Amino acid sequence: MKRRQFLSGAAVAGATAAAASTFAKPAIAQDVREWRMVTTWPKNFPGLGTGANLLAEYITKASEGRLKVTVFGAGEIVPAFEAIDAVGNGTVEMGHGAPYYWKGKVDATQYIAAMPFGLNAQEQNAWFQWGGGQELADKVYAELNCKFFPSGNTGTQMGGWFNKEMNTIDDYKGLKMRIPGLGGEVVKAAGANVVNLPGGEIPPALQSGAIDATEWVGPYNDLAFGLYKSAKYYYYPGWHEPATVLDNFINLDAWNALPDDLKAIVEQANRAVNQMVLSEFTARNVQALDTLRNKHGVDVRPFSDDILTGLGKLSGEVLRDLVSSNPLSQEVFESLIAFRTQSIAWSKFSEAAFAQARVLPFKY
Amino acid sequence: MKRRQFLSGAAVAGATAAAASTFAKPAIAQDVREWRMVTTWPKNFPGLGTGANLLAEYITKASEGRLKVTVFGAGEIVPAFEAIDAVGNGTVEMGHGAPYYWKGKVDATQYIAAMPFGLNAQEQNAWFQWGGGQELADKVYAELNCKFFPSGNTGTQMGGWFNKEMNTIDDYKGLKMRIPGLGGEVVKAAGANVVNLPGGEIPPALQSGAIDATEWVGPYNDLAFGLYKSAKYYYYPGWHEPATVLDNFINLDAWNALPDDLKAIVEQANRAVNQMVLSEFTARNVQALDTLRNKHGVDVRPFSDDILTGLGKLSGEVLRDLVSSNPLSQEVFESLIAFRTQSIAWSKFSEAAFAQARVLPFKY
Repeated sequence: MKRRQFLSGAAVAGATAAAASTFAKPAIAQDVREWRMVTTWPKNFPGLGTGANLLAEYITKASEGRLKVTVFGAGEIVPAFEAIDAVGNGTVEMGHGAPYYWKGKVDATQYIAAMPFGLNAQEQNAWFQWGGGQELADKVYAELNCKFFPSGNTGTQMGGWFNKEMNTIDDYKGLKMRIPGLGGEVVKAAGANVVNLPGGEIPPALQSGAIDATEWVGPYNDLAFGLYKSAKYYYYPGWHEPATVLDNFINLDAWNALPDDLKAIVEQANRAVNQMVLSEFTARNVQALDTLRNKHGVDVRPFSDDILTGLGKLSGEVLRDLVSSNPLSQEVFESLIAFRTQSIAWSKFSEAAFAQARVLPFKY
Repeated sequence: MKRRQFLSGAAVAGATAAAASTFAKPAIAQDVREWRMVTTWPKNFPGLGTGANLLAEYITKASEGRLKVTVFGAGEIVPAFEAIDAVGNGTVEMGHGAPYYWKGKVDATQYIAAMPFGLNAQEQNAWFQWGGGQELADKVYAELNCKFFPSGNTGTQMGGWFNKEMNTIDDYKGLKMRIPGLGGEVVKAAGANVVNLPGGEIPPALQSGAIDATEWVGPYNDLAFGLYKSAKYYYYPGWHEPATVLDNFINLDAWNALPDDLKAIVEQANRAVNQMVLSEFTARNVQALDTLRNKHGVDVRPFSDDILTGLGKLSGEVLRDLVSSNPLSQEVFESLIAFRTQSIAWSKFSEAAFAQARVLPFKY
């Protein structure tokens, strides 16, 4: 959807009213800006909602309240998946979510969010900051009348909860699985029946057999969500979301109207939050996994090489096919693929080689 | 060395003179602070000196010049390894370097910098931010009268340049190697003759056979330094420096005198730089490695499992022995070891598992 189209129709009134809103609101006096941040997360949702809180706190504190950001949970001002519309049309100034939520509006956002068998978190940040990713993401988000910042990362997620043993790629045939986004496209190509369900409906659907499997996030969120009560096996790794990006999106007019110091504060606050969120998942997932295994007796299993090889091959085919009809998606995808190739080449000598060296059989 | 001792002797005059310097300098007017940052890097040194530049730029920009930071390269105000004294005694307000440079003053700093077979960069950040690492590092740096921030990370380095083939752990016996810090202690325990040389003397020493081997950083810095001209083999991975931390250290009195908004700006700027530096190394090392291999014909080799297993075992023994006589080092070490254990447990299901899945034999 082009920006022109996006601004047409129902959104026009809001957009027009909002064009001057950064300056015209009663709350803005003595060079103080009050911004509202809508999110796709329930208020204070672990790791994700708390990341949004942190962003608001950092900006407000560093600006000494000259840019005061207040967070609103999903549904408080607009429903979760309308957050980007509310920001684009200027109803509010800022939002926090995940890029793949906007794929119905601009397809390319989902490649920015996470790519099956793609980059890990360290590489994803390097792509944004030294691989042209920030510029490409800004080009994509301009279609939504937004400025983009990476604003958190989950790290590598888990593969999901299954009530059937998964041994070969053929076990995906007829499997009823809740898995949205690009991962869903890939397992669909493997023969699965992909369904989409909102979070709250997942546990009863697993319990009744309406679905055989679901993915969610990782141990930290999955434990809190109680998924272990409804599923037998917990598979890893999360090949479909190796490092899911969270996004901070800002109304372009509001962004452009900021003075340079506040722009710098917002940029640095996002980089700080980006790291803090990843650190929280890195530190907390292991404790939750321990609870899942040792308190709740969860059976944690690796996907077989047959499954991973099969899904890897399908991922390349499916993604190439998907982007072929969308030049912007294609541009983002090609950039990510090039960066992925060089990242794997370096990882082999550094991070991946070290990860293997560290677990050789010696007593440390 | 305790803070009391540190402030005794030659440093006292400077410290006393500096106690009021944050407020008394002519340059400080209208609530504008001008800070000087000394570094251990040559001015604009790739990835490291440029990280220091970035930090100064971010703070100055976000504060709209209310805290103006000017960078000085090694030797411009004080020699590289006296940077922390100059900051601790208040000659200047701020510095940028690497924690292990201060081990002669406070031993525990070297465990904060990098630990053989320890944490990777993602985990190191998680330790600082969610594992009690920031608080411990502040306790360590308080001995130097400094506030600490992690301010960049090299990621996993390379193992080093060798003029002898390395096949088994026994090949370290009698090897003359330049390798400082904890890695040096470990290879010494393996029978090597460890020597220390400043950077400029390394290439001629390798050329003449005065040393058989040296470690440096990674492809990006090693290529610029021309080490390929003097050595045959380039081994990986850098087991001794899996994720070396850079530090920003700030005179404690100057830090405590900052208002909350400037404290927030300095904190967030450091988190931003921390990520930017790692991103730069992640993005640029692979291109440099490609040049080393394909243009300069460098023979890149993995350390054998025998070597890595032997060095891993020795690392645990050597580190435990080293910290046993120093309670502060012991406290930092125990915290890192506990975080390492849980990080490896999670990595096995996430990052490390994904790194292996991604390189299975499929066409992407």
